[in-house]
Amino acid sequence: MYGTQSSAAPTAPKPHAFAGVFTMLAPQMAALDRFLEGQLAAFEPEIRAMVDYCIDTSGKRIRPALVFLSGWREADGVSEDLVRAAAVVEMVHLATLVHDDIMDSAEVRRNRRTATREFGPTSAVLLGDALFAHALHLATHFPTTEVCAAVSESTRRVCAGEIVQTLRRGSTDLTPADYQRIIDLKTAELFRVSCFLGSRLAGYEDGYVGAADRFGRHLGIAYQIYDDLADFFGREDKIGKTLGTDLASGKMTLPLFALLDRLPPREKAELTLEIGGGRPAQPSLRMRQMLDLGVFDTVEAAVREEVGAARAALNEWPGHAPTRHMLLLSDVLLTQVASLRPVG
Amino acid sequence: MYGTQSSAAPTAPKPHAFAGVFTMLAPQMAALDRFLEGQLAAFEPEIRAMVDYCIDTSGKRIRPALVFLSGWREADGVSEDLVRAAAVVEMVHLATLVHDDIMDSAEVRRNRRTATREFGPTSAVLLGDALFAHALHLATHFPTTEVCAAVSESTRRVCAGEIVQTLRRGSTDLTPADYQRIIDLKTAELFRVSCFLGSRLAGYEDGYVGAADRFGRHLGIAYQIYDDLADFFGREDKIGKTLGTDLASGKMTLPLFALLDRLPPREKAELTLEIGGGRPAQPSLRMRQMLDLGVFDTVEAAVREEVGAARAALNEWPGHAPTRHMLLLSDVLLTQVASLRPVG
Repeated sequence: MYGTQSSAAPTAPKPHAFAGVFTMLAPQMAALDRFLEGQLAAFEPEIRAMVDYCIDTSGKRIRPALVFLSGWREADGVSEDLVRAAAVVEMVHLATLVHDDIMDSAEVRRNRRTATREFGPTSAVLLGDALFAHALHLATHFPTTEVCAAVSESTRRVCAGEIVQTLRRGSTDLTPADYQRIIDLKTAELFRVSCFLGSRLAGYEDGYVGAADRFGRHLGIAYQIYDDLADFFGREDKIGKTLGTDLASGKMTLPLFALLDRLPPREKAELTLEIGGGRPAQPSLRMRQMLDLGVFDTVEAAVREEVGAARAALNEWPGHAPTRHMLLLSDVLLTQVASLRPVG
Repeated sequence: MYGTQSSAAPTAPKPHAFAGVFTMLAPQMAALDRFLEGQLAAFEPEIRAMVDYCIDTSGKRIRPALVFLSGWREADGVSEDLVRAAAVVEMVHLATLVHDDIMDSAEVRRNRRTATREFGPTSAVLLGDALFAHALHLATHFPTTEVCAAVSESTRRVCAGEIVQTLRRGSTDLTPADYQRIIDLKTAELFRVSCFLGSRLAGYEDGYVGAADRFGRHLGIAYQIYDDLADFFGREDKIGKTLGTDLASGKMTLPLFALLDRLPPREKAELTLEIGGGRPAQPSLRMRQMLDLGVFDTVEAAVREEVGAARAALNEWPGHAPTRHMLLLSDVLLTQVASLRPVG
């Protein structure tokens, strides 16, 4: 049935990045896999196969990594609380992916067919809902309502960000501030809450939890800018999802802002038409222009700036166990961005 | 902007049923309206107008009524806890309506355009998500995780029911047991949890909470069977939503089961084609047949049976304050079903 699965087998290497950090987190990630697989039984029998399809183990698992790293304690075993929190944020993330793919009419995600392609958009809406609901149910298994409150609020903010983005599709009317707001809501929010939950559940003091929270937020912004650049410069077999959808679907991202800004008036008008759907997208032309006009450099610099802000949040806490690992993760993101640049 | 609004003004009478019980609940419903309106500020400014459009005050509010009635205490004022719980279940319900309408491509709900018609299906998916997320966030404002756990689990079950229904669309392969399972999940679940929350939050003993829970479940099943009959026999101006969608969209409901069961083979084959989308739906013909072949009576009897089971759950608790009011509500449902029968 799932014949399009390629690198989705649990033993396949993660298709993407952050490999160094993930080696360190192997026991945690294995525990997370087991935990997520164990959740299948909680779903109604009729929908288990569909849920199983979504909870594959081939994702990048960045949000769980943030939970584990921000809650790191040297010489500790695998914390059950962190595994549960990681499962909550990952499941919320999976739910948003299922819903995103409906809207993007995306065909491929994590190197196999999207849920909407596999089960139809109607079931995908409901499947995403069921994943959301179960994620929040898992969040109620902590002693207090704090985790559930944080996650439900984050989820609402993620949706708000996606709505704003949707409403603005095809329009170049968006300001860079609007873009910043959208990615702050739709991406940085879950990164932030992952770091909040990890550091909080590990019992770190409020000041450090606040610092981890800020680190997560800025890293999330940086990550989304990277992801937007990868939509132009990434390789599908490496990234594992359909690329080039932003331009084709009229989604204004930083690379497009920067390109519009630098094109001469006539060409700017032409790209505006492309974004608005008035003519076919020309991704190769746009990539070449982005390289020629220094757009790639600008976007890379924007990622660096946000990574810098993320790192600065941890400045006062060099001795805390998570700090070193979180800094390492932010380094990996910089390497990733740089590797998007075409050779030669 | 919202020019299609007709009976949606807060002062307009509820478009539908349960009027007697609602008069008694006027202070509670007014408090619920105020509470829900107060929640708008919690949503991101960019999506408030959309949320406001969904949180109109013209709904039937049956689930909030169940919360208030099952948590009834004579001579009590309006309980803040019950208002909050009522808001949680109503908001979950509103979210499911927003998503349902996408799938049904419904044009009208509560006498005005559906969210999917007003904002587009993409925004409607996200808007439903944001409502879900905020409902669960409100559920975390209780001292323990119990409310949030109950509501998130119910929500997952509701979605599972909807998925099963979706997967079976257009097929007459469904058994009556499948139908029972679907409505148990998609409708009875929220009715049940409403009664559970009301009686629990009002501090009733476990035995009574269990009884209220069973009452809610059976009433929910009865209500869905009524609603499925109303899809054929209701009047749109009275029910306030697009009717006749079940046959047209191939949704097998009890009236269709019973009709298929009684039609001679050749006509049965024809109706099977209609349900499968192989030929246009003939709702008037089917209604006449339902009346002639006693299908209306059979379905009405099924409603009565479930209402009977609901009432029986309260048999041991005649003296408890909520009991009388819950029984009254179940009476109203029977009146409603009877009133669907065409005159003459």
